[in-house]
Amino acid sequence: MTLPIHKPTLLLDKDKAIRNIERMIEKASEANVSFRPHFKTHQSAEIGSWFSERGVTKITVSSVDMASYFAVAGWLDILIAFPVNVRQGRAINKLAHEIDLHLVVESVATAVTLNNFLGTTVNVWLKIDTGHGRTGIRWDDLELLTDVAHTVAAAPHLNLTGILTHAGQTYAARSTEEIAAIYAETARRLGTIRRHLQAEGHTLLVSVGDTPACSIIEDFADIDEIRPGNFVFYDLAQQRLGACFPDDIAVGVACPIVAKHEADHRIVLYGGAVHLSKDSMVINEEVIYGRIARLSKDGWGQMQYGSKLILISQEHGVFTTDPFTFDSLDVGDVVVVLPVHSCLTVDLYSQYLTLSGDIITKMRTNP
Amino acid sequence: MTLPIHKPTLLLDKDKAIRNIERMIEKASEANVSFRPHFKTHQSAEIGSWFSERGVTKITVSSVDMASYFAVAGWLDILIAFPVNVRQGRAINKLAHEIDLHLVVESVATAVTLNNFLGTTVNVWLKIDTGHGRTGIRWDDLELLTDVAHTVAAAPHLNLTGILTHAGQTYAARSTEEIAAIYAETARRLGTIRRHLQAEGHTLLVSVGDTPACSIIEDFADIDEIRPGNFVFYDLAQQRLGACFPDDIAVGVACPIVAKHEADHRIVLYGGAVHLSKDSMVINEEVIYGRIARLSKDGWGQMQYGSKLILISQEHGVFTTDPFTFDSLDVGDVVVVLPVHSCLTVDLYSQYLTLSGDIITKMRTNP
Repeated sequence: MTLPIHKPTLLLDKDKAIRNIERMIEKASEANVSFRPHFKTHQSAEIGSWFSERGVTKITVSSVDMASYFAVAGWLDILIAFPVNVRQGRAINKLAHEIDLHLVVESVATAVTLNNFLGTTVNVWLKIDTGHGRTGIRWDDLELLTDVAHTVAAAPHLNLTGILTHAGQTYAARSTEEIAAIYAETARRLGTIRRHLQAEGHTLLVSVGDTPACSIIEDFADIDEIRPGNFVFYDLAQQRLGACFPDDIAVGVACPIVAKHEADHRIVLYGGAVHLSKDSMVINEEVIYGRIARLSKDGWGQMQYGSKLILISQEHGVFTTDPFTFDSLDVGDVVVVLPVHSCLTVDLYSQYLTLSGDIITKMRTNP
Repeated sequence: MTLPIHKPTLLLDKDKAIRNIERMIEKASEANVSFRPHFKTHQSAEIGSWFSERGVTKITVSSVDMASYFAVAGWLDILIAFPVNVRQGRAINKLAHEIDLHLVVESVATAVTLNNFLGTTVNVWLKIDTGHGRTGIRWDDLELLTDVAHTVAAAPHLNLTGILTHAGQTYAARSTEEIAAIYAETARRLGTIRRHLQAEGHTLLVSVGDTPACSIIEDFADIDEIRPGNFVFYDLAQQRLGACFPDDIAVGVACPIVAKHEADHRIVLYGGAVHLSKDSMVINEEVIYGRIARLSKDGWGQMQYGSKLILISQEHGVFTTDPFTFDSLDVGDVVVVLPVHSCLTVDLYSQYLTLSGDIITKMRTNP
């Protein structure tokens, strides 16, 4: 069918997304690890149902609001993989009464506060910084780890469940070999912590979560659970890392062409930072905000490797491309921008348009 | 009053915004130029009324949807400062019948298409690229300029009105002197074009639009209209350019603290790219996504110059600060992040919370 594109529109290739989902389910099953996909990428109850229809029962989210949204959608086992925000005590308590709630703690103070405001028991995972440097207890700070573990274990409303990391440093890798090496080191560090806390009397599960490693690694020895999220749609950043093929990218933003500049072979899109996000990647010292594919009746065709979205402002995007593509495109035509980071692009919308013309709704992060 | 902050919340200091508005109205009046503020920064009918109450009757917007939103709010003279998107012909036609509509054209092809689908007359401005390199007819391409001007002038539904530029290259300036020099060169280039087209029989208005130049320049000789937008809220990028003082920044995002890391003196916020946007600035080779101010009963206090939001992911922000501030903040406290680019931050929300606790609604860019 011909899609009704008048302005920047978030497109979803449902077949590709389902293929990505099925591949990760199969991988987790073969590796004998529990699969708790992160839903922060799609944020949609309907897309969530594509997982539940295939047997997934546990999910990860990144905020209390997102947990509430998916609880309403029927999910009964939800991990909020973000340090507990003690200012949302009431909403956390409500969820704890409704579902099997899993929370992440990284300090004695938060564990104590959390235990005090809870009216029922929740499962607690210790957040470990295995080298990413964003948040969590440093993997080598065994003293703090032990303190927090003892505090959680002793708290009547907290059920010490496991240790958890997001090894986001894989996003800075330059090859799949480097991703594999980071994963191996992450698993080694988590193994050391598990054994240390085991010796202190705590039996713990181990959970890891980044899409690059979960896409590349086959053998998850000593890991109990994986929590990838981005794999449902993938994007240019993952493709560049070698975590997916260009053809696995399941979302794009359809953008009308509003100007062509012959002099420097640039094409101006109605499609800017408010439609794509401002996330970028640097290739050969050049900052790139997306690549272009042609819109066809069946969706979008092959990614144009020679195309580069090189400039982006609030509503404008400017791309360069090969001479053949440049000449074949006109003002009023629509192209598809493949995003650098699908999570941030998708977050800008409250709905997807599928290639068969259906609207799929999603939650909004902010009121 | 104590604001009810449970999660990242867009705060608006109404007094500062009104002060910014009044200052720019006064400047335009003293310089004897027409004032057509850009509403893409605030995107709010209620904030728009703060302008109309002070005598403003003409506005600029960046999309057809935004024009429709403000037309419903009662604005009768609207310029869409974006190359005409011919795929929105029906909505453009509807607006053209309802209000005094101004459009921007930069090619013969678009002028012809536009004239063909219009059922009434619109005002057309030629978009000039005076050096920014994003979009528009290059200032020195007098042949193309003349072609487009003749085409527009001859088209029955197009009323050739003026030439217009957005000298966005001021955002790359390193001093107010450099901004003034860019402005002078912009005005000179536009003057040359005006005289050239005057000799061809076209009497044209001249309109300029960037907030840095509009904030710094006092004498707008040979300019008929100014269209700044960002000045309503300003931000760290403008403050760094010297276009405003820190105390002029009228929006911030209140964010709860969720973790503190003593080892490297980092504080983790519930507040990431989906709450702030991923726009950044580079200071001393370091990428910065925002600075911190303390939340007080009356809003936020002085910007902490020593604070830097140095890492941002989907929902996390990590900042460093001076030892005194670090020690005085705890998990559960709320700080205010001053944004690098207020337009993109504000675009992520559908409402503001004022310091007196009122909700002000705004439009959303994407469905």
